[in-house]
Amino acid sequence: MENLNIALIGCGMIGREHIERIQNRIRGAKIVAVCDVFEEGAKKGAEIAGAGTKIYTDFNEAINDPDVNAVVVTTPGQFHKGPVLAAIKAGKPVFSEKPLANTAADGKEIVEAEMAGGKHLVQVGFMRRYDRGYRQVKELIDSGKFGAPMVIKCTHRADGVADDYTTAMAVTDTAIHEIDVLPWLVNDEWDEVQCIMPKTNSKVKNALKDPQIMIMKTKGGIINMLEVNVNCGFGYDINCEVVCENGVVNLPCPSFPTVRYANEVSTKIEDNWILRFIDSYDVEIQDWVDHALKGETGGSSAWDGYVASITADALVKSQTSGVPEKVVTGGTPDFYKK
Amino acid sequence: MENLNIALIGCGMIGREHIERIQNRIRGAKIVAVCDVFEEGAKKGAEIAGAGTKIYTDFNEAINDPDVNAVVVTTPGQFHKGPVLAAIKAGKPVFSEKPLANTAADGKEIVEAEMAGGKHLVQVGFMRRYDRGYRQVKELIDSGKFGAPMVIKCTHRADGVADDYTTAMAVTDTAIHEIDVLPWLVNDEWDEVQCIMPKTNSKVKNALKDPQIMIMKTKGGIINMLEVNVNCGFGYDINCEVVCENGVVNLPCPSFPTVRYANEVSTKIEDNWILRFIDSYDVEIQDWVDHALKGETGGSSAWDGYVASITADALVKSQTSGVPEKVVTGGTPDFYKK
Amino acid sequence: MENLNIALIGCGMIGREHIERIQNRIRGAKIVAVCDVFEEGAKKGAEIAGAGTKIYTDFNEAINDPDVNAVVVTTPGQFHKGPVLAAIKAGKPVFSEKPLANTAADGKEIVEAEMAGGKHLVQVGFMRRYDRGYRQVKELIDSGKFGAPMVIKCTHRADGVADDYTTAMAVTDTAIHEIDVLPWLVNDEWDEVQCIMPKTNSKVKNALKDPQIMIMKTKGGIINMLEVNVNCGFGYDINCEVVCENGVVNLPCPSFPTVRYANEVSTKIEDNWILRFIDSYDVEIQDWVDHALKGETGGSSAWDGYVASITADALVKSQTSGVPEKVVTGGTPDFYKK
Amino acid sequence: MENLNIALIGCGMIGREHIERIQNRIRGAKIVAVCDVFEEGAKKGAEIAGAGTKIYTDFNEAINDPDVNAVVVTTPGQFHKGPVLAAIKAGKPVFSEKPLANTAADGKEIVEAEMAGGKHLVQVGFMRRYDRGYRQVKELIDSGKFGAPMVIKCTHRADGVADDYTTAMAVTDTAIHEIDVLPWLVNDEWDEVQCIMPKTNSKVKNALKDPQIMIMKTKGGIINMLEVNVNCGFGYDINCEVVCENGVVNLPCPSFPTVRYANEVSTKIEDNWILRFIDSYDVEIQDWVDHALKGETGGSSAWDGYVASITADALVKSQTSGVPEKVVTGGTPDFYKK
Ligand SMILES: [Mg+2]
Ligand SMILES: [Mg+2]
Ligand SMILES: [Mg+2]
Ligand SMILES: [Mg+2]
Repeated sequence: MENLNIALIGCGMIGREHIERIQNRIRGAKIVAVCDVFEEGAKKGAEIAGAGTKIYTDFNEAINDPDVNAVVVTTPGQFHKGPVLAAIKAGKPVFSEKPLANTAADGKEIVEAEMAGGKHLVQVGFMRRYDRGYRQVKELIDSGKFGAPMVIKCTHRADGVADDYTTAMAVTDTAIHEIDVLPWLVNDEWDEVQCIMPKTNSKVKNALKDPQIMIMKTKGGIINMLEVNVNCGFGYDINCEVVCENGVVNLPCPSFPTVRYANEVSTKIEDNWILRFIDSYDVEIQDWVDHALKGETGGSSAWDGYVASITADALVKSQTSGVPEKVVTGGTPDFYKK
Repeated sequence: MENLNIALIGCGMIGREHIERIQNRIRGAKIVAVCDVFEEGAKKGAEIAGAGTKIYTDFNEAINDPDVNAVVVTTPGQFHKGPVLAAIKAGKPVFSEKPLANTAADGKEIVEAEMAGGKHLVQVGFMRRYDRGYRQVKELIDSGKFGAPMVIKCTHRADGVADDYTTAMAVTDTAIHEIDVLPWLVNDEWDEVQCIMPKTNSKVKNALKDPQIMIMKTKGGIINMLEVNVNCGFGYDINCEVVCENGVVNLPCPSFPTVRYANEVSTKIEDNWILRFIDSYDVEIQDWVDHALKGETGGSSAWDGYVASITADALVKSQTSGVPEKVVTGGTPDFYKK
Repeated sequence: MENLNIALIGCGMIGREHIERIQNRIRGAKIVAVCDVFEEGAKKGAEIAGAGTKIYTDFNEAINDPDVNAVVVTTPGQFHKGPVLAAIKAGKPVFSEKPLANTAADGKEIVEAEMAGGKHLVQVGFMRRYDRGYRQVKELIDSGKFGAPMVIKCTHRADGVADDYTTAMAVTDTAIHEIDVLPWLVNDEWDEVQCIMPKTNSKVKNALKDPQIMIMKTKGGIINMLEVNVNCGFGYDINCEVVCENGVVNLPCPSFPTVRYANEVSTKIEDNWILRFIDSYDVEIQDWVDHALKGETGGSSAWDGYVASITADALVKSQTSGVPEKVVTGGTPDFYKK
Repeated sequence: MENLNIALIGCGMIGREHIERIQNRIRGAKIVAVCDVFEEGAKKGAEIAGAGTKIYTDFNEAINDPDVNAVVVTTPGQFHKGPVLAAIKAGKPVFSEKPLANTAADGKEIVEAEMAGGKHLVQVGFMRRYDRGYRQVKELIDSGKFGAPMVIKCTHRADGVADDYTTAMAVTDTAIHEIDVLPWLVNDEWDEVQCIMPKTNSKVKNALKDPQIMIMKTKGGIINMLEVNVNCGFGYDINCEVVCENGVVNLPCPSFPTVRYANEVSTKIEDNWILRFIDSYDVEIQDWVDHALKGETGGSSAWDGYVASITADALVKSQTSGVPEKVVTGGTPDFYKK
């Protein structure tokens, strides 16, 4: 393939972001068609994509357009399965935003379709694997200098959330990033996960439990302690500390000037996730394009996406049961072994 | 009282440290007698204390010496009870190194004796309450600016430990400091505690489990996650992060020059607990002296020491049970309410 | 213009870097021809650029090739003038690596040729204006929150230098970056500059004076104190602190994980300037391409490059005179006013 | 001597601070007499010192009181000479707050009197030599690990100053601390000093020039660049960076909790010099007492104080001359060589 000619399915906020990204900052790829069930949305997307962009409201038509040779899926999570399966069927590489699907059953269906097709076509948009900081941490861990990882501590803090954010979404929308990135970071798999609830922030006015603590154990015995805290009020604050046998490695915070002002030495905390990971998105999409042009996939596979769903389900279950829940995947199929 | 004339009981390492401290850096107090079951030890202590120091091998005689009006107990933990009870009986103020006693039963006996005497005489040597950093953190929390504490994260890391350090000692010798200092820091009480075990550091050659994670919940719903990690290999590293409703406060590390050298910007991590808390010890002993001269006690009370023992027992129990264990104190007696 | 078809002149190290960059990471531009006085060098460059790249040894032929519509000059500094003038004559946009020229006379010739042509064609490769950190600092200064800048303090430290690095090169090769970037940063112009010499590093085995201190005053009265220190032995360490009337802003260091190891908390210092500013080079070249495609220039102009040369000359003069030397530019021509 | 029985001369702010300090936190010393030309002031001082303190308005009487065996001088600088000479004459150890004297002539008179007496009796109150951070930096430099110091960079920033603070006081009141502490820090002597003026902070409403830059060269060729900036508006901010041949060492800032709040990670900057150096004052006075009890002096000698005056004079001269001025001491007398 010389160039990806992409049909982008789902012209919501993240969709429009990716249109702008692909048209302006990515090499070797072009949005040639956009699709949204709402024609107005599709038109808006086409406007960003530029003159000549085809407009669809039916994703099957968009994906099967002969001018299209690759697919980006940015619909709401519960609508990922349809276009992803269509792309697999069409034999076209597909980048699906995270999560791969909203239920483990849907994820399994995708995994099975991809294996049946015999070709790696699906990449899931977990952008943290492309974050420079996580990559630096991984490099240090993999160097062996610090010995084996034993404990991980993460924070996933956000300034605030919309009113319809629920207790379960602390897992499915928020912790889902740590669920995916940590096993990659330490070369391990989740075994058992638990959610425990400290007192809730008095700013929360509905049924949401926030913060939440997630205790997650890998098959290799590493324990991760994750603080999900989405009403912290002071910005978007991602931290990750990996305690190894001979040393401790901390994810760097985004780099800002240090300022002396008003009796404080300070640096800025990023405002939101879009800005925090904006570089990662560029790297991620470019990497997908580069892989797709060679008939390959990078980043998180459909299997990774499926396992993330299973893990999320176990954590959500633990939110009610209060005890550790097993993460049962049945083992990585050979097709997905690296 | 004009001046404390102290009998110090137990001339081991920490005892000799306190002798040197009291004779050289503390105002209003003087070691006039030292006691150790081993006469050699007592003589060594007297040598540090200076000419004229009386030497005893029987703590009852030392404590009841009419020249003595205050007592410092620095015997091994299991031998604290005897001299502390003797001091109470003699009506003399007594500073006991931590722990107050090695069993909750012993602790209870002391508490009951003190209450029976009707006079606050016992102070327990948990020096962290005197550490400047903890005090700064407490001041910030108590200011209310950051809202209520919800989550605490601590590390208690040591370079290494002696071969006879056991899994239980991770609680009774190490975590005991966090057990005491955290309720004081956030004005709360322990409710339920649990110990979970990540993979053990491969450097450990005996049955010790290290690191250990302790999940501790207060009656007010604050969750503390404590990493005890005593073979970390890189120094004595105490951290404490308090996550409040509107902000997060971190205990400062000890202050050292920042150095640029060999492709790194670095600051030193303290070597060991003696150096890390050396200032706190001075402040602690001076504060005890100042209080005792006024017929009062400061710092941790006998009740605090007793509750710490109960909490430690629950954590040790959880090391085997693997589940959360309740901390049952029966409620703070009026005598100890502040 | 739809796409830049570039002739790159000078296939040394930085030239080959830019070939690789433009072919692989830049949108809207392609190297179509390479030129080097040494045919072997040109062939090596063509190999990196890919099949079909034309090979020249005469820069005039390369620049006037009708397939070429833009020029990148990466020859040694003393050979910048020829190709830059040729590009101006041909009316083709030209990116010249810094410095614009090695003498002020050459710089003046270029400036006059560009003005005579009446069209902005020349951009000089001072990449720091594209560094994210400098841009963040500039944004904070320009916000006005901290008041007017009064004092600047910079370090330009390198691990070590080649044996043929001379005292003058501390200005012309090293400080030249601060000479260009600081007036841009604080919206001012150099007035008077002085070089003073502390004791030389005993590691220096030749006539080089290192470190050197450069005291540089702007027309607005800002004083910059620059430490050039090219045998520091601990990495490439760029710092810039801007002292304003109500606050102080510091350039961020590159972002690396924080590590606890061997009794130190540390972060890495970058090894060399290529890695330190690698992102800036990408942004710089992309910005040049984006501007050139619209018939514009960005970054440092020929005038900026000329003024940098004059400033460098004054500093070099002060290395011998020991006193402050005036920076005499004759005033910015209207053509170059922003 | 068993105990210092001190006459304190001058009951202004710093005098009253030292009374409180000596009576409450210092071992081996007691204020037994206070003196102030204003009887009210002396009475106020006596009140802080406690019952039984003698009250004088004539410093000669106070110093020659047979109950007095040591002297602390905390009068305004221009009145230091009288009591210091009286103490020397009486053969009693004397601690004089900085500066030793307000003119070099006065300083010389003291130095000559002390040498004539043949006994080291005078210690000057430059407390920074007792600051833990400076001591840590000195220890690192003296270790030799980083090679010889070549460049120093300091800031002496204060939130603001009184209306009667003058341009000369930037040297005599403010820079005087760096003038004393740096030669001690790097084991060298001042050779030549210069004051240069950046644009003045627009907040300054009188004739004061602020900030000021002081360029100070040692006999060994070390260049110090000092920013005096006493209207910085953000606190009391002391920094000191020592650039050595193989590494750079930075003075630690005071230790405060790190806070995440309102989109910033921050730590506090100390409010004022009293709080910044409060620990140093305790250590300084205790060290003076400990030395005096042994018939010795510690810290800064009369010679150090005299040299500081000469250096200050040269800097003040350079404020007008604009050029470097020599520091001429005539060489350290054998009496003061260490
Ligand atoms: Mg994503
Ligand atoms: Mg203790
Ligand atoms: Mg450049
Ligand atoms: Mg002083």
